[in-house]
Amino acid sequence: MFGLMQDRPLLISSLIEHANTFHVRTEIVSRLPEGPIRRSSWGQVRQRAQQVANALNQLGIRPGDRVGTLAWNSDRHLALYFGVSGSGAVLHTINPRLFPEQIDYIVNHAEDQVIFFDVGFAPLVARLAPSCRTVKHFVAMTDRATMPAAEIPNLLCWQDLVEGQSADFTWPAFDERTASSLCYTSGTTGNPKGVLYSHRSTVLHTLMELAPDTFGISSEETVMLIVPMFHANAWGTPYAAAMAGTRLVLPGPHLDGASVYQLMKDERVTFSQGVPTVWLMLFQHVDAHPGLDPKELGLKRVGIGGSAVPRAMLERFENQFGAEVVQGWGMTETSPIGVISKLLPKHFALPHEELVKIKLKQGRGVWGVDLKLVGDDGQVMPWDGVSRGHLHVRGPWIASGYFKGEGGTKLDAEGFFPTGDVATIDPDGYLQLVDRAKDVIKSGGEWISSIDVENAAMGHPAVAEAAIIGVAHPKWQERPLLLVVRRPGQEVTREQLLDFLSTRMAKWWLPDDVVFVTELPHTATGKLLKTRLREQYQDHVLPTVDRA
Amino acid sequence: MFGLMQDRPLLISSLIEHANTFHVRTEIVSRLPEGPIRRSSWGQVRQRAQQVANALNQLGIRPGDRVGTLAWNSDRHLALYFGVSGSGAVLHTINPRLFPEQIDYIVNHAEDQVIFFDVGFAPLVARLAPSCRTVKHFVAMTDRATMPAAEIPNLLCWQDLVEGQSADFTWPAFDERTASSLCYTSGTTGNPKGVLYSHRSTVLHTLMELAPDTFGISSEETVMLIVPMFHANAWGTPYAAAMAGTRLVLPGPHLDGASVYQLMKDERVTFSQGVPTVWLMLFQHVDAHPGLDPKELGLKRVGIGGSAVPRAMLERFENQFGAEVVQGWGMTETSPIGVISKLLPKHFALPHEELVKIKLKQGRGVWGVDLKLVGDDGQVMPWDGVSRGHLHVRGPWIASGYFKGEGGTKLDAEGFFPTGDVATIDPDGYLQLVDRAKDVIKSGGEWISSIDVENAAMGHPAVAEAAIIGVAHPKWQERPLLLVVRRPGQEVTREQLLDFLSTRMAKWWLPDDVVFVTELPHTATGKLLKTRLREQYQDHVLPTVDRA
Repeated sequence: MFGLMQDRPLLISSLIEHANTFHVRTEIVSRLPEGPIRRSSWGQVRQRAQQVANALNQLGIRPGDRVGTLAWNSDRHLALYFGVSGSGAVLHTINPRLFPEQIDYIVNHAEDQVIFFDVGFAPLVARLAPSCRTVKHFVAMTDRATMPAAEIPNLLCWQDLVEGQSADFTWPAFDERTASSLCYTSGTTGNPKGVLYSHRSTVLHTLMELAPDTFGISSEETVMLIVPMFHANAWGTPYAAAMAGTRLVLPGPHLDGASVYQLMKDERVTFSQGVPTVWLMLFQHVDAHPGLDPKELGLKRVGIGGSAVPRAMLERFENQFGAEVVQGWGMTETSPIGVISKLLPKHFALPHEELVKIKLKQGRGVWGVDLKLVGDDGQVMPWDGVSRGHLHVRGPWIASGYFKGEGGTKLDAEGFFPTGDVATIDPDGYLQLVDRAKDVIKSGGEWISSIDVENAAMGHPAVAEAAIIGVAHPKWQERPLLLVVRRPGQEVTREQLLDFLSTRMAKWWLPDDVVFVTELPHTATGKLLKTRLREQYQDHVLPTVDRA
Repeated sequence: MFGLMQDRPLLISSLIEHANTFHVRTEIVSRLPEGPIRRSSWGQVRQRAQQVANALNQLGIRPGDRVGTLAWNSDRHLALYFGVSGSGAVLHTINPRLFPEQIDYIVNHAEDQVIFFDVGFAPLVARLAPSCRTVKHFVAMTDRATMPAAEIPNLLCWQDLVEGQSADFTWPAFDERTASSLCYTSGTTGNPKGVLYSHRSTVLHTLMELAPDTFGISSEETVMLIVPMFHANAWGTPYAAAMAGTRLVLPGPHLDGASVYQLMKDERVTFSQGVPTVWLMLFQHVDAHPGLDPKELGLKRVGIGGSAVPRAMLERFENQFGAEVVQGWGMTETSPIGVISKLLPKHFALPHEELVKIKLKQGRGVWGVDLKLVGDDGQVMPWDGVSRGHLHVRGPWIASGYFKGEGGTKLDAEGFFPTGDVATIDPDGYLQLVDRAKDVIKSGGEWISSIDVENAAMGHPAVAEAAIIGVAHPKWQERPLLLVVRRPGQEVTREQLLDFLSTRMAKWWLPDDVVFVTELPHTATGKLLKTRLREQYQDHVLPTVDRA
């Protein structure tokens, strides 16, 4: 027997309609690539979104067609978020930081029909255009006066195409499982793979993003969205801000410390989200201007994800900025909310050192995301804070597979998605990442965490960057090899470094060898490219190997 | 094209599983009918819920069967919330305050198969049992030692039936549109009608209840649930508390001011929800004990709904308790969240008088509830804060009709549900109730708000209660007649009262006559029974009628 409740599909268009109805004049502040501020509103973004829908219709875009974006965070990108998905097409946010060959692959794999781009990306688009076989139109997201000079075929101007449209458009109703958006993950191996979100998954994820136990997005906040809109739906915040009627501040490409600081101050930002890298740039700016008191910003909370929050960052936000740090773990495949680090009431009275330990874990599970740790032999591992396992996740905003079936069947027998991360979970459900599964080093059947050893090595003042990989060992199967880039002008020897590490980890975790290098290879998004390191050092003979 | 996200149904069982996984030891504090406190936990409630599911199975209850409850707020009632719905049966919460004939009608209409009841309701159950044709078992929610002595057929004991079961039970998966629970509305006319919720509507409503712009339920709170669990899902809070892992305090039948105050203090309650009546009892307790300083409670917020919040109540909570008031409007048919009164940032700097005006409105729309004002001729009325219209609502947690088709087709052509309320909505989306549609007085084609006139009359110190009804008038179709119950020992004349009112409303709203009565008729839930008043005074001749 079914309930007798209204049968309303969960659609992204309902978010922008809500914002328009109840928060029509709430500001959307965009810093343009050229520098000045443009002040818009939820009402205007909705109108632009309707114009986008009419423009797509004029261009012959049909439901399910992919519409690409190569753009920074702005009110125009926001209008595309709602206009493209709302009309029934699929918003494909492309990461412009990828290597051009990867973008080329992605655009062709997604079969994008149109690409909207910020003028700053015109040279990139000009270079890519000839090989983008499916793209019928390139739309520069700018005014007639500032159209790019680059040679781009089928080039259209946002002002002409979008702003000239009627704003009369009624969002279509359709099945909530319809695809809404597409985002490719850039792994360290193989081609990027596309995660295809649905209207349903997006709306459910958005609801959870409002919860105080996650990011607590509300109409009281002014949220500065530093995490790029091409990066896992900007953590879902464009949608959550519409659902809550939040005032949004969008910094465009201006992510340097000085720009971020000034914009936060001018616009009285209360909450901001970003990866550790941008916060380090913000700290550098503060360091370079000793007269600044960051408490003047009135920043209340900072959401940090993408990689683990260093202790110094946590304490600096708390002490120097007076801001609470909300750490999270997730991935493109998880929309991205996976776990969020919020304290439980029983923690409030703990001594500082104990508190910090909990805060530095990636976070606790939220409703909607089931977690499972799986051992090497498929057994379910206990949540004791010590046992390690492959992290599997399940829930209505977790991917079931990749676009066009790339990577094959992903879900395990219980419907969980394997994340490729190795983690521990404590009895309160706090997850701590140990490693990427493929980076784990197995010594005599036991796992050595590359993250822990690398972090310890980077704690040495002479170390700029460190990478640890497993190298074949006849007795232990694998033993760790440490690769180190020294800081300019600093010296440290192999023995000094091993001495340093020996007080910081179990003896059997200590690297068997150290190699000093001038640089380490990275992916386009800045991750260590360990596959290349493993190839490069596959024949490295550890001094601990008995050559007899 | 569908997205590639996991296909997970939204089921109530996922809420209690989440609470058990991530908040297993978080306390559920129940005050027993006998007085003492029982301390349980989310883990234990989940175990009891599993035992309930096994017990229902043993009793032959199948998916879709209705299971009634006649119970106060307790951990056992909470276990029934999750155990009954989680197993696929329908939880039918019966309001024990209804007249016995109404309960009799409801139980038979719902075709309840089992009824769980608190021992305090044993005399009621004994009286009702013979006419409950479908009920095969009555379960006293108590231990063997305290089983009721009343003559009840097929009587079972909770301790035997439930606590003796295995806690090994895997929640079944099924379509999220499956009926989960049933609650009858007690209108002022006709038989009660059943609202049949679904798992989907319940989970979506629960997600919204976590939002800071509604009740902001989180793991940081200790929530005292005063609103009864037989009243519109206790505003959804049992579900929200499970989803967030909130510490819950359940007061049982002890809703007098002294008990509520003491329990709030002992259990360090931070948020509590209830109707104005219970707060008036709390205030009376504080008044009777001048030594008390309610700020000692540490109460941060109070959720109030069910009827409009009087200004004095708002100001008293703010000033004397230091607690924010979160007013809401909703009804059984809206799960119940309809609108919630939260200020917007632009209001923060307003002078007190302006702020109070906004806070006393019922609230602003939340995502998921579309609002529409419909005029008498079916035209859509503007949101100008002045124009009145019939309030229609639409959304995934709004009823589409009543159980077994009672009341016929309810939705209008756009899929909105007519609430029977008349309201205004201002440009910011704040709704203010004007009247129940059937209580509106139409004078010369214009609406006079009975709520406003009654509130004004009750502002006179000699008036204990007031009711206004429309009486036939040859010239104006209807004119208002005011019925007044004087406070004991107080005097006020017809002319003094009209004088008093004349400075408080437009001249044409002034009642044409005043009749003093010793009491006014009410429904079982305390609403004024205006249908009876209108019958009683249908021949009343107003002094303003020209008898020539």
